[in-house]
Amino acid sequence: MALQGKELTIGQVHSAQVVQDLKRTQIVQYAGASGDYNPIHTDEPYARDIAGYPTVFAHGMLTMGMTGAMLTDYVGDGRLTKFGVRFTSQVWPGDDLKASAIFEGLEESVDGTLANFAVETVNQDGAVVLKGYAQARVD
Amino acid sequence: MALQGKELTIGQVHSAQVVQDLKRTQIVQYAGASGDYNPIHTDEPYARDIAGYPTVFAHGMLTMGMTGAMLTDYVGDGRLTKFGVRFTSQVWPGDDLKASAIFEGLEESVDGTLANFAVETVNQDGAVVLKGYAQARVD
Repeated sequence: MALQGKELTIGQVHSAQVVQDLKRTQIVQYAGASGDYNPIHTDEPYARDIAGYPTVFAHGMLTMGMTGAMLTDYVGDGRLTKFGVRFTSQVWPGDDLKASAIFEGLEESVDGTLANFAVETVNQDGAVVLKGYAQARVD
Repeated sequence: MALQGKELTIGQVHSAQVVQDLKRTQIVQYAGASGDYNPIHTDEPYARDIAGYPTVFAHGMLTMGMTGAMLTDYVGDGRLTKFGVRFTSQVWPGDDLKASAIFEGLEESVDGTLANFAVETVNQDGAVVLKGYAQARVD
């Protein structure tokens, strides 16, 4: 199931719908999993009335985690060696997110052949919510 | 509660215990939050008997998420602008993890003053499980 470097062509895009209709419960699960209990993510009255947001919103790291699930599913478990992102827009309950990895080339290293990818996650309106890169062993 | 750039000195270390005695349940919660249901993380007989590991182990992205919680707690919510890591060692049930951010300097940008940090997470034996960097708005 490991991705083979020879199957990749520069510019090739792998995309996956990583969440459809994001639920508040999923954000609450992420608070429990990560230990980040900032009420802005899980307490609707706090988010609206005190912090002034239209509603609660997802932890940036949850978007990163869902994007990471696309990556590990694509490259094979235990093969993701680097992953870095910028958070470019907020993710709200009800959002659909599509994450993409764009192959940028191979490099050789002591760990074997590594593939470099640009990574981008967009919402249902096409707004980019996360931009970054990833590197994975592919041989 | 936002971190002020002027309070930071180069080399200053902020550390937090991000998990003590990691539970299998927390790994299962992360599977549910991220959508990464690879059985190697949640199915003990599969991890041992089929994949040949001593037990299930945490998703790399869960370690990243717990480290990210240290960062957002430190710099203030919505201020983390970049975060990138390498996964350097596996994280097992029962592990204690301590995550650290080491201040490396400030830079000015159109988004205001940004602080750069080296990031490192170690387990109870001092083994480094994650290495990376982060950038955050601090003014």
